[in-house]
Amino acid sequence: MTERNIRVQPIERGAVEDETVEIVERKGVGHPDSICDGVAEHVSEALAQAYLDRVGKVLHYNTDETQLVAGTAAPAFGGGEVVEPVYLLVVGRATKHYVDEAGDEHHIPVDAIALEAARDYLRETLPALDLETDVVVDVRLGEGSGDLQEVFGEDEQHVPEANDTSFGVGHAPLTETEELVLETERHLNGPYHDDNPAIGQDVKVMGKREGDHIDLTVAVALVDRHVPDLDAYEAEVEGVRETVASLAADYTDRDVTVHVNTADDYEEGSVYLTVTGTSAEQGDDGSVGRGNRANGLITPNRSMSMEATSGKNPVNHIGKIYNLLSTQIAESVVADVEGIRDLRVRLLSQIGRPIDQPHVADVHVVTDDDVTVDDIEADVREIVDAELADVTSITQRVIDGELGTF
Amino acid sequence: MTERNIRVQPIERGAVEDETVEIVERKGVGHPDSICDGVAEHVSEALAQAYLDRVGKVLHYNTDETQLVAGTAAPAFGGGEVVEPVYLLVVGRATKHYVDEAGDEHHIPVDAIALEAARDYLRETLPALDLETDVVVDVRLGEGSGDLQEVFGEDEQHVPEANDTSFGVGHAPLTETEELVLETERHLNGPYHDDNPAIGQDVKVMGKREGDHIDLTVAVALVDRHVPDLDAYEAEVEGVRETVASLAADYTDRDVTVHVNTADDYEEGSVYLTVTGTSAEQGDDGSVGRGNRANGLITPNRSMSMEATSGKNPVNHIGKIYNLLSTQIAESVVADVEGIRDLRVRLLSQIGRPIDQPHVADVHVVTDDDVTVDDIEADVREIVDAELADVTSITQRVIDGELGTF
Amino acid sequence: MTERNIRVQPIERGAVEDETVEIVERKGVGHPDSICDGVAEHVSEALAQAYLDRVGKVLHYNTDETQLVAGTAAPAFGGGEVVEPVYLLVVGRATKHYVDEAGDEHHIPVDAIALEAARDYLRETLPALDLETDVVVDVRLGEGSGDLQEVFGEDEQHVPEANDTSFGVGHAPLTETEELVLETERHLNGPYHDDNPAIGQDVKVMGKREGDHIDLTVAVALVDRHVPDLDAYEAEVEGVRETVASLAADYTDRDVTVHVNTADDYEEGSVYLTVTGTSAEQGDDGSVGRGNRANGLITPNRSMSMEATSGKNPVNHIGKIYNLLSTQIAESVVADVEGIRDLRVRLLSQIGRPIDQPHVADVHVVTDDDVTVDDIEADVREIVDAELADVTSITQRVIDGELGTF
Amino acid sequence: MTERNIRVQPIERGAVEDETVEIVERKGVGHPDSICDGVAEHVSEALAQAYLDRVGKVLHYNTDETQLVAGTAAPAFGGGEVVEPVYLLVVGRATKHYVDEAGDEHHIPVDAIALEAARDYLRETLPALDLETDVVVDVRLGEGSGDLQEVFGEDEQHVPEANDTSFGVGHAPLTETEELVLETERHLNGPYHDDNPAIGQDVKVMGKREGDHIDLTVAVALVDRHVPDLDAYEAEVEGVRETVASLAADYTDRDVTVHVNTADDYEEGSVYLTVTGTSAEQGDDGSVGRGNRANGLITPNRSMSMEATSGKNPVNHIGKIYNLLSTQIAESVVADVEGIRDLRVRLLSQIGRPIDQPHVADVHVVTDDDVTVDDIEADVREIVDAELADVTSITQRVIDGELGTF
Repeated sequence: MTERNIRVQPIERGAVEDETVEIVERKGVGHPDSICDGVAEHVSEALAQAYLDRVGKVLHYNTDETQLVAGTAAPAFGGGEVVEPVYLLVVGRATKHYVDEAGDEHHIPVDAIALEAARDYLRETLPALDLETDVVVDVRLGEGSGDLQEVFGEDEQHVPEANDTSFGVGHAPLTETEELVLETERHLNGPYHDDNPAIGQDVKVMGKREGDHIDLTVAVALVDRHVPDLDAYEAEVEGVRETVASLAADYTDRDVTVHVNTADDYEEGSVYLTVTGTSAEQGDDGSVGRGNRANGLITPNRSMSMEATSGKNPVNHIGKIYNLLSTQIAESVVADVEGIRDLRVRLLSQIGRPIDQPHVADVHVVTDDDVTVDDIEADVREIVDAELADVTSITQRVIDGELGTF
Repeated sequence: MTERNIRVQPIERGAVEDETVEIVERKGVGHPDSICDGVAEHVSEALAQAYLDRVGKVLHYNTDETQLVAGTAAPAFGGGEVVEPVYLLVVGRATKHYVDEAGDEHHIPVDAIALEAARDYLRETLPALDLETDVVVDVRLGEGSGDLQEVFGEDEQHVPEANDTSFGVGHAPLTETEELVLETERHLNGPYHDDNPAIGQDVKVMGKREGDHIDLTVAVALVDRHVPDLDAYEAEVEGVRETVASLAADYTDRDVTVHVNTADDYEEGSVYLTVTGTSAEQGDDGSVGRGNRANGLITPNRSMSMEATSGKNPVNHIGKIYNLLSTQIAESVVADVEGIRDLRVRLLSQIGRPIDQPHVADVHVVTDDDVTVDDIEADVREIVDAELADVTSITQRVIDGELGTF
Repeated sequence: MTERNIRVQPIERGAVEDETVEIVERKGVGHPDSICDGVAEHVSEALAQAYLDRVGKVLHYNTDETQLVAGTAAPAFGGGEVVEPVYLLVVGRATKHYVDEAGDEHHIPVDAIALEAARDYLRETLPALDLETDVVVDVRLGEGSGDLQEVFGEDEQHVPEANDTSFGVGHAPLTETEELVLETERHLNGPYHDDNPAIGQDVKVMGKREGDHIDLTVAVALVDRHVPDLDAYEAEVEGVRETVASLAADYTDRDVTVHVNTADDYEEGSVYLTVTGTSAEQGDDGSVGRGNRANGLITPNRSMSMEATSGKNPVNHIGKIYNLLSTQIAESVVADVEGIRDLRVRLLSQIGRPIDQPHVADVHVVTDDDVTVDDIEADVREIVDAELADVTSITQRVIDGELGTF
Repeated sequence: MTERNIRVQPIERGAVEDETVEIVERKGVGHPDSICDGVAEHVSEALAQAYLDRVGKVLHYNTDETQLVAGTAAPAFGGGEVVEPVYLLVVGRATKHYVDEAGDEHHIPVDAIALEAARDYLRETLPALDLETDVVVDVRLGEGSGDLQEVFGEDEQHVPEANDTSFGVGHAPLTETEELVLETERHLNGPYHDDNPAIGQDVKVMGKREGDHIDLTVAVALVDRHVPDLDAYEAEVEGVRETVASLAADYTDRDVTVHVNTADDYEEGSVYLTVTGTSAEQGDDGSVGRGNRANGLITPNRSMSMEATSGKNPVNHIGKIYNLLSTQIAESVVADVEGIRDLRVRLLSQIGRPIDQPHVADVHVVTDDDVTVDDIEADVREIVDAELADVTSITQRVIDGELGTF
């Protein structure tokens, strides 16, 4: 039915859900590494869209190297101030000059586009950050390899070739601990923040499960202007603890202990108070690809790719595409096929080969006790095949900002 | 009547108004050098005010080294775009940490203050510059010499001591050519711009008088979004020529020829069109102290100080204070004493001496034919003495932004 | 016999050596990411040593954020040139001011130390890079959190407390594929380079094993001044292929195919020629922690930590210490205990707890068929316990540059 | 005999030598402003030479905007250290890409050339500055205006056209005070330094003459490694005082008082000690064109051009050429024509006109009492004419580094 090299096999291990010790981490959107991921990806989206608007296809670029140099700040109950601004350097390559088939020259203002996209992203993501005083955004985009400048996205029908020998990996379903870590950060940075403006965006969640006990350690940067005094601070911390504990009950029957801002020392007056809602204001540097993997989590119990997904060109950068696609495949399979307890999808590219034809698409499953791999293999294979055939839709969804990369 | 060392003497030359060849130049507020002057001075004002607000006196700082690295732009009739943003680096020293007499520690966010002041200034001064896409503002402020950190502005009664052996010079009255050059730029960047938004702020005026003929050469950066086509461009240029010619008649009876954007070549399509109203967008770098002297002009026929006035601390930076004060003295004397055709005031400091006691205040005058220096000496001396006694008011007026420095 | 929380258990999976598909990668010392790792670690060593020399203990610092912005180059057979220098920004925090117990003030020149260390490292590591023309090294080190400035390394007897809740993981023994990937890069950058100066340091090795077939894909940047023409280039590539094939036979009996510089296109004249021996000269940016893990490899078949090991303070930065220590423990156990086919050590810290007392030391083993976990548990436990007791020796060995971090 | 517009007239003032008060200043080669001037000019020479070597003519460039951001240092008797390196940013424009008449493409590595030239200059000029630890040299060269990229130096016969309406001014002979200020710095930074390595290059000399009394105020940065203690420091200062006093006797019969390092306070231990021989190491920023004029002096008693001479393209940048040429003309005239007490040459360009045809060459003289302007006019005119005819030799001498610009 297909020529794609798809393998479906039992996994060599048990389900992660069944391991004795499980460790899961998520760096929230306001963590310095995540800020870099987000800026890099937003800049990438803006560049891709600009190329489409101006020349009808996405030219060569890669912006996966944003570096954040932390500032210094003097937070204070009721409102402090940033003393030395954060310095954010957007690094990468992008095609600045292009001659189209009609011979018309195009000068694409990639630096200006990147600058605006980075500032827009910061403004939207970090409401307590004042862009006029708290951050310097700088841009250093080179011109990139001449050879590569015109190979991308010739037309929509065309499936690009892989630009590298690389590797993507995705998993499904999330374990309870993973889901809990992910949803805790999303809830705090979402609905809970809406009602509690003191919640900063630098929410870091560490989940550790030993057997059936889960410790959720949450570090939340509080925004000083919304916290008048230490009593208010304690109340905010307690509020977070309660809401997370309550949330946990929705995701697991296991025993969950929630720890919030455990490094605080109230007697010493040492608390996690910030002006801007992120530790980037004081001593915590950040860069792209150092934090969450493409599924939003750091999961040392699972295979992970070291590839930085954020900021890369989504047309033919195979590391990015295969990390996103393998995650999507895993989710699709688990959604549609009954009886899967744990599933890992690995996609391995070969340089120069069309990206819908991976060197191998390697699917490993742990089935429920009453199901065998043979029972489900055909269904799995069909979904994998269909998703691979539709690989270019990943590109469009990335450009549209529909797919998270961190 | 006073112990100040004030000398009033005939000048060694004739009045500049009577010289055969006179050359005068003004770089308008949007010229890259003037942008740097303005940013530096605005940052200085903001820092001085912040120190006064926070610790009651102006601590050591010096911000007279802003550097502008030009961008690249693609102007186009009807509206083009900046391709590579301008990079503006605010350089200097400022006291960041201060322990007051009560032992309270103060951390003054000088970098954040400088960043905001620089951006505010650009926003107000260059309406066509989009701060989100067209410019990167960066700040590198060091801590300055430890020795100097607490010597400034102890209280208002106190007259500071000179921090250097330096020199200031002022002249009055302006010659017709000087007045014409100054007012041409102010008119174009003021009332005329209000009615003609196509006028960019980068207006450069060169006046050359040979005998009784004045050539006024005006270069005006036009803002592309307000100029739909070449015909409109020509109309704008002609409008400038006419308004300047008309203005000239108010200031001189001499014969004036006005040249506008003489480097244009309409046939080649090479015209002075910009996106932002300043040549900083394309290839013209700038820095502090390279353009206009403290009276707003470059006047090679007159004594000039090389000191950069903009950005310096106005409390005890003697080069700044004496350039501003000598100009003010010259203007006061000419306003109050009849019979003066040309007057030069030089103030020479001695390091460590109170600034109201210059090493020498050297006043040279060219009198009208029917007046002698003896006739006016006492009046001149009295005014000089009073202005010196009131030297600290210069500081306050600088902090309040009332005194131009370029 | 010990109070440490050490668990020894069967692993939940088979040995990696037995998996069907295995993927292993190593970025050589001249890869842009590795350059950043190496600079960051060398700067770290220099700072730690400087603190020891000056104040007798290691003060707070963290330099794990070096960012490399690629240059542009014009390589040519026989010798080309770098056109636009590489820009290398060393980012981090370090204590600059310290008052010792005797009340003596110390100003530690951390920026100057970092600058020199970075330049020294580049000079030693990349012999074809001309530091006068090919690279700009810049430094931005902040002062770091005040709270943390004096907590480190009080005296040698003292075991520091963990600064974070973090995680380290180590494995032993290496699989054949892992060993082959590692040794290929080391051989090319070591003895082979000594005889073949055309070999640049940017050697990237990707190993893929499917069953008993191994594909080794090697990309080697050649140094143009040692390659007079295309024939010489081809000869160099063939030389690499032969030496790697020969080396492979020493490490495995499996079937190995060696691919060298597969993206070359001789007809198009497109080959992997460089001026400096690294792709950083042309379009490839780099940053810390994006490449090899602490054992020198990227191994998606194994648990990996996302923690950047290079550049971190080795006194109490638990992510760094536990990644290095777990690797060392794994190697020690495998060296001393018979019958282990695959072993994984995970160390999980708890913030505030002495680092020789991990929250859990989690040892998973795959034993040989004729050995059970019970047979070896006591021996393993004893080694783990001894290594943990000696944790501070890791710190010293890192400072002395004896432990690789990437 | 010639068509050049040359005017020779009596000056409107007396000789500067006869004025009552005269002020003269020179910032030595190690002053932060002079460092920038020197780097900018050395970079300019290197670029011009590279263009000649590679494409046979000097392409468009302008590098007159180097900015120095001061470091911090901890000097100490016997040898201290730089704590935070100086940051030197070379700014400008230069043509990076050129297609010659044969259609061959040239990529000129202007950034690498500028980097090397800047570092070479620092190494040669500031022997106590360690380039591995004490300074970061960065480069930001833009591509410059497209229109201007190919207009320069087409062939040697051709006289370029002025690129601007600008102005140059030169004077001769130097007054005694001027000569004394100039030679004091040259002696201290030359023969005296050779025997006294403690003398740093940041030597600033201020001369003030009132009537027949000259005060020479000399500030000399001493290099700490050559100054073991305060006694040695005092001996060095006294040595400078004596050698300058002795030198003065060679240049003037007037009464000269020499002041050296007057801001020192031995009791407070506050002395002018440096690690590197320049105040750039601690708090003193610098930039191009803020210090000495083209003749090496700041002379408020004389007409000065505000134009920054250093770093500009010497082929058609008229401000640079006319400042250098007017000085050379003045010196030639005074050398060859008897009876001139003071002479000023002003050259005014007109944009688009060949540079050997200034709009006006305006020569003003003060003659000896027994000579009239008429007596010498023909001789003067002849020399001016010949020098103008030979204007392009200025360009070559600048490229060869034979003409000082600051």
